[in-house]
Amino acid sequence: MTDPVLIDELKTLVEPGKVLTDADSLATYGKDWTKQYAPAPSAIVFPKSVEQVQAIVRWANERKVALVPSGGRTGLSAAAVAPNGEVVVSFDYMNQIVEFNATDRTVVCQPGVVTAQLQNFAEEKGLYYPVDFASAGSSQIGGNIGTNAGGIKVIRYGMTRNWVAGLKVVTGKGDLLELNKDLIKNATGYDLRQLFIGAEGTLGFVVEATMRLERQPTNLTAMVLGTPDFDSIMPVLHAFQDKLDLTAFEFFSDRCLDKILARGDVPAPFETRAPFYALLEFEATTDERADQALATFERCVNEGWVVDGVMSQSEQQLQNLWKLREYISETISHFIPYKNDISVTVSKVPAFLADIDAIVSQNYPDFEVLWYGHIGDGNLHLNILKPQALSKEEFFEKCATVNKWVFETVERYNGSISAEHGVGMTKRDYLAYSRSQAEIDYMKAIKAVFDPNGIMNPGKIFA
Amino acid sequence: MTDPVLIDELKTLVEPGKVLTDADSLATYGKDWTKQYAPAPSAIVFPKSVEQVQAIVRWANERKVALVPSGGRTGLSAAAVAPNGEVVVSFDYMNQIVEFNATDRTVVCQPGVVTAQLQNFAEEKGLYYPVDFASAGSSQIGGNIGTNAGGIKVIRYGMTRNWVAGLKVVTGKGDLLELNKDLIKNATGYDLRQLFIGAEGTLGFVVEATMRLERQPTNLTAMVLGTPDFDSIMPVLHAFQDKLDLTAFEFFSDRCLDKILARGDVPAPFETRAPFYALLEFEATTDERADQALATFERCVNEGWVVDGVMSQSEQQLQNLWKLREYISETISHFIPYKNDISVTVSKVPAFLADIDAIVSQNYPDFEVLWYGHIGDGNLHLNILKPQALSKEEFFEKCATVNKWVFETVERYNGSISAEHGVGMTKRDYLAYSRSQAEIDYMKAIKAVFDPNGIMNPGKIFA
Repeated sequence: MTDPVLIDELKTLVEPGKVLTDADSLATYGKDWTKQYAPAPSAIVFPKSVEQVQAIVRWANERKVALVPSGGRTGLSAAAVAPNGEVVVSFDYMNQIVEFNATDRTVVCQPGVVTAQLQNFAEEKGLYYPVDFASAGSSQIGGNIGTNAGGIKVIRYGMTRNWVAGLKVVTGKGDLLELNKDLIKNATGYDLRQLFIGAEGTLGFVVEATMRLERQPTNLTAMVLGTPDFDSIMPVLHAFQDKLDLTAFEFFSDRCLDKILARGDVPAPFETRAPFYALLEFEATTDERADQALATFERCVNEGWVVDGVMSQSEQQLQNLWKLREYISETISHFIPYKNDISVTVSKVPAFLADIDAIVSQNYPDFEVLWYGHIGDGNLHLNILKPQALSKEEFFEKCATVNKWVFETVERYNGSISAEHGVGMTKRDYLAYSRSQAEIDYMKAIKAVFDPNGIMNPGKIFA
Repeated sequence: MTDPVLIDELKTLVEPGKVLTDADSLATYGKDWTKQYAPAPSAIVFPKSVEQVQAIVRWANERKVALVPSGGRTGLSAAAVAPNGEVVVSFDYMNQIVEFNATDRTVVCQPGVVTAQLQNFAEEKGLYYPVDFASAGSSQIGGNIGTNAGGIKVIRYGMTRNWVAGLKVVTGKGDLLELNKDLIKNATGYDLRQLFIGAEGTLGFVVEATMRLERQPTNLTAMVLGTPDFDSIMPVLHAFQDKLDLTAFEFFSDRCLDKILARGDVPAPFETRAPFYALLEFEATTDERADQALATFERCVNEGWVVDGVMSQSEQQLQNLWKLREYISETISHFIPYKNDISVTVSKVPAFLADIDAIVSQNYPDFEVLWYGHIGDGNLHLNILKPQALSKEEFFEKCATVNKWVFETVERYNGSISAEHGVGMTKRDYLAYSRSQAEIDYMKAIKAVFDPNGIMNPGKIFA
């Protein structure tokens, strides 16, 4: 769509100045954190109300214009990229917290509320919004819902899905639906709210969300433990899970630690080096709890599963231990990594990881493989760094081969080719490794129900 | 369908003797716990494998025969009643626990596994299946999933939905779908698993479910507190929620207690009588926790929210306190109650309850109204007992008028006409009080995707 008549029509639907078509805006709002597809939208529109969103959708249906929903654009699957002349619908001006209910512990958010904004709001109210991840400072609630965002606290608090009490959506047909009305118990037919969570904007727009809050955790305490091999991490997880309600259980390899320490601004957890590290977190609500954690640590050392470890004694130490894990993604981004975000059931993790490791090292012995992730929920982030000697093109060509091996292994282990980053365009052609053709056909038929003209984020999830 | 040729065809699809057409079987398997609709199925079929379920569905599509899924038949909305010559598909012979994984804390269940069977299995493994309700001794997992069963521990553990890691379903078209593969994180398109949970068998059959287990709760302790009025129950809820992770927060009126004490087999919680009672439960993991509970109790007394109370000191006392709440439904069933299962957001409960009370007492001052329910999640069970002087017919006629007032009030409070009992046939004609016409249209269109010939439990949820 480059028809100026259409742009003029679009301008009548929103406030003055709320349609942008300059090259900078198109480039900025036309893409997410992926770099694979060149942004080429026709226009960026900024609605300020539900009515304006509905007007845009109705107009798009009439004119057969494709729409791309746009939040914080921190996505890693190109689900919010507009490569084909689409109109990008940005929620930057629908970013208010509308209502707070202390009894229900709920917050009504416009879709453009930034994750950290909700987290801070909750804290001000003495409560807690527990979904947290590296891009919380710019990701928006609407996008979190569209991708069912996960992150570092899933083992205890679950995905974004768990925290959505109610949703207002505008479907691809332009209908405004008020889904679930913020109820805890509501057995009145299909829970359509669940369909929109994780739909990557292919069924319609989230225009308001009621999010639940939780009590604040008490005295969060982290431990970092070095293990002699990967296989030891699983019994460590069990040992701690039997004794404590963990709020996180992450892992990273020594190679990841190397990169972090090379930054110079994060202290080493302890002197001993180990091939792998587990980072776990729990609420030290009482001294008894902390003692249990220490006793479990000692048991793990005696069993030979842990070679050294440290427990945070202050908020500062807690933050420093978390930096070891949370800074990895940003730190390695300078090495041009090939990235994958995959999951299997927790019990299959060790065999799965060993298989992938073997395949990559046999075929590309010069590739540096970095593993880290949310092992408590079976979610592994596989990263391969570009060797200096290889050009970017050669590297990504070889990575396409790696991709195939990785996804074949995922399929063999009954896993997911996208644990928490969504499908978008980057995983679209691999969807069949995780979903059967029958499932894909049902998904397409459901899309046709909500979006018969195919105007909502076309080309995302499936072609 | 009474065509003997069709019955003979059906017999070829399952093992010998696994199609029943005798009057007793038709009457038994043709109904659930509701008594409103006379059962009139054509046959009862008992598949023993997924393949047999698929064969039945394919045959039903060819012959345009309606199928009704049947589990423990403990439903309260007539979703599992067969009033129109349908074939009832019973899962009584698909009742095995197939697999257990200690690392993933998952159990693979056939749909006919009884809730208590899963609860006991979990306990044997040192774990816990937390969804619990009065009919756990006979309800089946397939039915729990079909209705998204809730019960008494929802405030802490959520509905059945939260515990379904993966589902195998046979759709109304006969396709076998393996949904979510038991993964914790899986961002690969629409989560079709969620659609089948709570669909009351209108989209297809659940033929296998992987259920999650949880660590066992430690030293569960209950308190029963008498309050001077209903409004005092909410600040009591807040006071305890601020200090403890509650596993339950129930309430019942003094009239309910009267009925329970009249049984003669349950001791009174304490001597003082109060208009309302709260029953709360928490894990007394440490002495500190129990002390916190007692301190909060004292605070509630000082504030005037509580007039008397008791805390369980043993497993036996815990059981006895729970009987005060759990025996209500069974005890009052002899009084021919009009029942409703409704919900609003927790903050709206006091005003909502007062409104309904006022409407009923103004119009039918001779009606005895009994309230109890899961107040921690906004779910109220409204019960009105038939006055001796009224005939059953007159009573239910007047109740139809009450129904209208109740549902109008529910609509005004943005609540649900069915909190946890489903829609089935009993709430079908009232669905529009909780779901918009647009939502209902989308639901019907989704049903058509999975069940184009309308063979799956027709007439349930919507006509």
